[in-house]
Amino acid sequence: MSASTAAPIALTMGEPAGIGVEIAIKAWQRRDARELPPFFLLADIELSRRVAGLLDEADAVAEIDSPAQVAGLFPHALPVLPTPLPSPVRFGKPDPDNAAAVLSAIRRGVDYCLSGEASALVTNPIQKSSLYEAGFAHRGHTEYLAELCQGDARPVMMLACPGLRTVPVTIHVPLHEAIASLDAAAIVAYARITADALVSDFGIERPRLAIAGLNPHAGEDGALGDEDRQIIKPAVAQLADAGIAVRGPLPADAMFTSQMRASYDAAVCMYHDQALIPIKTLQFEAGVNITLGLPLVRTSPDHGTALGLAGQGRADAGSLITAIVYAGLMARRRALRG
Amino acid sequence: MSASTAAPIALTMGEPAGIGVEIAIKAWQRRDARELPPFFLLADIELSRRVAGLLDEADAVAEIDSPAQVAGLFPHALPVLPTPLPSPVRFGKPDPDNAAAVLSAIRRGVDYCLSGEASALVTNPIQKSSLYEAGFAHRGHTEYLAELCQGDARPVMMLACPGLRTVPVTIHVPLHEAIASLDAAAIVAYARITADALVSDFGIERPRLAIAGLNPHAGEDGALGDEDRQIIKPAVAQLADAGIAVRGPLPADAMFTSQMRASYDAAVCMYHDQALIPIKTLQFEAGVNITLGLPLVRTSPDHGTALGLAGQGRADAGSLITAIVYAGLMARRRALRG
Repeated sequence: MSASTAAPIALTMGEPAGIGVEIAIKAWQRRDARELPPFFLLADIELSRRVAGLLDEADAVAEIDSPAQVAGLFPHALPVLPTPLPSPVRFGKPDPDNAAAVLSAIRRGVDYCLSGEASALVTNPIQKSSLYEAGFAHRGHTEYLAELCQGDARPVMMLACPGLRTVPVTIHVPLHEAIASLDAAAIVAYARITADALVSDFGIERPRLAIAGLNPHAGEDGALGDEDRQIIKPAVAQLADAGIAVRGPLPADAMFTSQMRASYDAAVCMYHDQALIPIKTLQFEAGVNITLGLPLVRTSPDHGTALGLAGQGRADAGSLITAIVYAGLMARRRALRG
Repeated sequence: MSASTAAPIALTMGEPAGIGVEIAIKAWQRRDARELPPFFLLADIELSRRVAGLLDEADAVAEIDSPAQVAGLFPHALPVLPTPLPSPVRFGKPDPDNAAAVLSAIRRGVDYCLSGEASALVTNPIQKSSLYEAGFAHRGHTEYLAELCQGDARPVMMLACPGLRTVPVTIHVPLHEAIASLDAAAIVAYARITADALVSDFGIERPRLAIAGLNPHAGEDGALGDEDRQIIKPAVAQLADAGIAVRGPLPADAMFTSQMRASYDAAVCMYHDQALIPIKTLQFEAGVNITLGLPLVRTSPDHGTALGLAGQGRADAGSLITAIVYAGLMARRRALRG
């Protein structure tokens, strides 16, 4: 086992006015029941203690100054690597003065992964509107991570829940732009990154991909739209020529029946909701967001900052726990191969 | 109870080279286990006997010449009202020579419903490509039914499975056309027909509607597309003003979590796959297609003709059975109110 497998997972605080720190502590509370790999939180120490107090777990937080301290501490306390916030947190009210610290937690998490001191990165949700005000210039987390891993990243978002993995080839763009920007080369690139990741990070020797159509009934041979046969079909042919086990374009409704889901390892989807609807329909709490195509393993819960829930102790840590479990498994598989 | 409630359900044969007659006989076989209301099949007698023989149920078919004979016969045999096919059926090979008879079964089913001799219409899947060759000039079943009910129809498709009902406001058009044709007046009209049907046919006194957004995250206040706030939001406001319990535009992924599904009676969706993906993800066999806005109750299974399965005795009657159950319940509720 390489050094990086034994290394702990780095977990960012996310939006401090949201539920990130709370669900981090709740995940740590369930470390034994869920057999979680050791992780540490990049967060403000005062905030962490305050949230731990809210959860009647005042002694749960242990300050560390290096990921190397995590392994020994983790059974007894949640290791927190300080990322100080300049402005006191008011739950539910994101403060742009804290934006730089939020980004710094992400940046340091990436650095620990790239140096091998952390084995994977799990990110709590951020409040983009607050970061934008502070000058954040990225569409989201994923794009920021790609920049931090510069030169070595082609980030691809995967959503996963028990029994289904989906990968959207277009994400946070208006639907009409997603249609206009569909491109065979991009579909091929995303599908290849997906297939590679299924091998390296998921232990699937010969991954089977299903490629979704765009239009109703995958265009019904052109009667209901041309993109399926003009753009998607040639991409599927290229993938098949490259030796990838692939089918499509498949009608995007029929491909998500339980019978069909069992027939492939990942569904490559044409737009955000096509990939997200089946995942959220199947499973909300246990869904997880995975970024493929980075030089590091990165997962995140599939929900937002939940500002309205923050500070009340009622947040559900299910998706974060799943994200930590996935990160641990993926890091181990990648290390075993690497 | 009015005369039309006691009347049997009319079931069309659908594409004779497909699985329609087979699943009709299988549904009849489960009449007691599933407490099915009496129904009769509009089909070719020879074909019905041949398929019954394939299912080792040679005596199951009883020829009738009026729906009035159904009630007495149904416990003992499947009543078949003859709709002769001019050309012998080869399973899996639709024959345009039989198209006129396929359409005639639908037409007669509608007539029986409008006259009150049948309480509801359940349609088996048709093979549109074969009907087109024979001069069929409609997009599909639903549009044909609307014409047959002329002047008194604004057909609205609803998909239903346990725990979820969805209504697409655009259906069989390319996705980019669906976007371009979105229109607040149409959304309002579809939502009102849906709300009315939930009262009249589903026994829900105060229906709660959820209206889906179009773009990722329902447009995120315009950052990810304008249709949500420019078209859908005003439609939702109009519906609320009219006293309908309505929410939206909701992000189309988040609205299908189990928690959200429990909070509304129907989801009004902007395009085909937005409505169909969650239904098929949840439940394939037991899904059902319902046409609202007609002067008659009409349901159908949510699958196609399954030409590749025809004549083998392996077809699953689950969705047809659900369609018959729904038709019976809806007809009874409508009669009780009417």
